[in-house]
Amino acid sequence: METLTAQLLAGNKRALARALTIVEDGGKDACSVVRQLFPYSGKAHLIGITGSPGVGKSTLVDALVTEIRKADLKVAVIATDPTSPFTGGAILGDRIRMQAHTLDQNVFIRSMANRGHAGGTSLAIYDAVRMLEAFGYEIIIIETVGVGQTELSIAKTADTTILVLMPGSGDEIQAIKSGIMEIGDLFVVNKGDLPGAHKTASEISYSLELAQHFPGWTPPVLVSIAETGAGLDEIWQAVGKHRQYLLESGMLEERRKAKVAAELEELVSEIVRTNLKASLEHSHIQELLHQVLAREVDPHSAAENLIKELFGSN
Amino acid sequence: METLTAQLLAGNKRALARALTIVEDGGKDACSVVRQLFPYSGKAHLIGITGSPGVGKSTLVDALVTEIRKADLKVAVIATDPTSPFTGGAILGDRIRMQAHTLDQNVFIRSMANRGHAGGTSLAIYDAVRMLEAFGYEIIIIETVGVGQTELSIAKTADTTILVLMPGSGDEIQAIKSGIMEIGDLFVVNKGDLPGAHKTASEISYSLELAQHFPGWTPPVLVSIAETGAGLDEIWQAVGKHRQYLLESGMLEERRKAKVAAELEELVSEIVRTNLKASLEHSHIQELLHQVLAREVDPHSAAENLIKELFGSN
Repeated sequence: METLTAQLLAGNKRALARALTIVEDGGKDACSVVRQLFPYSGKAHLIGITGSPGVGKSTLVDALVTEIRKADLKVAVIATDPTSPFTGGAILGDRIRMQAHTLDQNVFIRSMANRGHAGGTSLAIYDAVRMLEAFGYEIIIIETVGVGQTELSIAKTADTTILVLMPGSGDEIQAIKSGIMEIGDLFVVNKGDLPGAHKTASEISYSLELAQHFPGWTPPVLVSIAETGAGLDEIWQAVGKHRQYLLESGMLEERRKAKVAAELEELVSEIVRTNLKASLEHSHIQELLHQVLAREVDPHSAAENLIKELFGSN
Repeated sequence: METLTAQLLAGNKRALARALTIVEDGGKDACSVVRQLFPYSGKAHLIGITGSPGVGKSTLVDALVTEIRKADLKVAVIATDPTSPFTGGAILGDRIRMQAHTLDQNVFIRSMANRGHAGGTSLAIYDAVRMLEAFGYEIIIIETVGVGQTELSIAKTADTTILVLMPGSGDEIQAIKSGIMEIGDLFVVNKGDLPGAHKTASEISYSLELAQHFPGWTPPVLVSIAETGAGLDEIWQAVGKHRQYLLESGMLEERRKAKVAAELEELVSEIVRTNLKASLEHSHIQELLHQVLAREVDPHSAAENLIKELFGSN
């Protein structure tokens, strides 16, 4: 394990790929790798990109990577895929996109699925970001598919979150209704060549003015055509301005503290859940399940009994 | 509290509404109400309805309620709304739809948001279903917005889960890719008057044949036009056949056991999370947070320390 981390720190991409697989799988090995590389982490700026399927997130990420490379920064992309809650398998597998960047040594792309962690993908992503930071990536893009609660919790791991929408999809209304607007530091109406793009942007701007989520920061609403790269320089500039705002206002520190608290909460929950899963095999816990099914014990009382069983004795 | 439950069992709708608010808020009162009514629960057939926004779920639920009333069964609808992870507020609020049923004493409609429960809406829904069962509803429809992980965990609380799609949205491909197909006991292609409806249905059927998720049950794929009620009788018949399958195969018992295990897991996690949240205020836990921020302690080690702090002493 120490060889692996030494190789990673020396710039060996194979070591990086292996470390990422290890943190994705979770468990003891993941803890060990993270323990060793944690001191070298925390330096990158994290950009979260989220939005409904079909708005062109992948193309936008592609174009943003091009923009970031113009600034001569090393960039990594983590694309998270929705995962079946039943089989736990990954879906997209190897990505065939972003072929324009495959020969660029300073671009790294990785798809991640929810494998080892019961607590969802976000725990693995926290650790994956650390691996990429230790390796030396300066910008890390976390792309999530969809705007469900899982995706939102992933989006919250970023420093700057970009919410991508498209004109005429009704997405903006859905977003406003669902409170998703609150997570956006920056809004992009992609497919800006479609009719209604600027109208959609105005509607979003208007609802943001009403909301005022962040003191000192009004999220800009930009229009882009990711296919052609139009509007991408403005997006990249806005990310820079947002980073400056985070640093000057002290929000970066505050957000990162909230992130650590959230991560600890998830980690503790995961440890508890693992203990619980193991204990469900025991015959007296099975007996408890049957008592609930027979309506002899209600679930809340059963849960209290379980906690006593699990932690009461140590 | 005992008056409340007595009134609810006597058929007082106001008592039911109050009990639902109590379980939605969570906490000690919720546990107490559930403890009293739990013995009267477990008798209804639960139908979960899920699908992307815009496929016409609400209209379909409306039409299905009409169908269920034709069979002279008492039916309740729980509509769960996506909730902002930041403000915790509900969105849709009072529902203005389903006006056709407002005068029908045997139909009950309730929107639920994720309020008291840290563990998400599903815990409140388990308990809400119990209240509705104790009151005497024979069919309970649980409608969720979206197909994220939260919605899936809610869908899993049902006995029969209906996945609603629409033609030409690309939804079916998204669903196949994301593994969401696996949760459907029944598939409905709504807006069947749009072009491509039957093609979409065939594609879904084909992918289901390849998958074979449930031994002894091939999920039917039906086409409906919820607006006009076309296809609704077939859907309701299919629900009946699925219930028969669940009973005859012993799957109903098996699923309900798995549901109790999942609920206990969530309840235990919630109790732990509540303890943890409270302890984060303590100065030595704050110190731990700062050590992680200063990269002196890695998060995994910090989580282990936290567990010891929280449970080690009792």
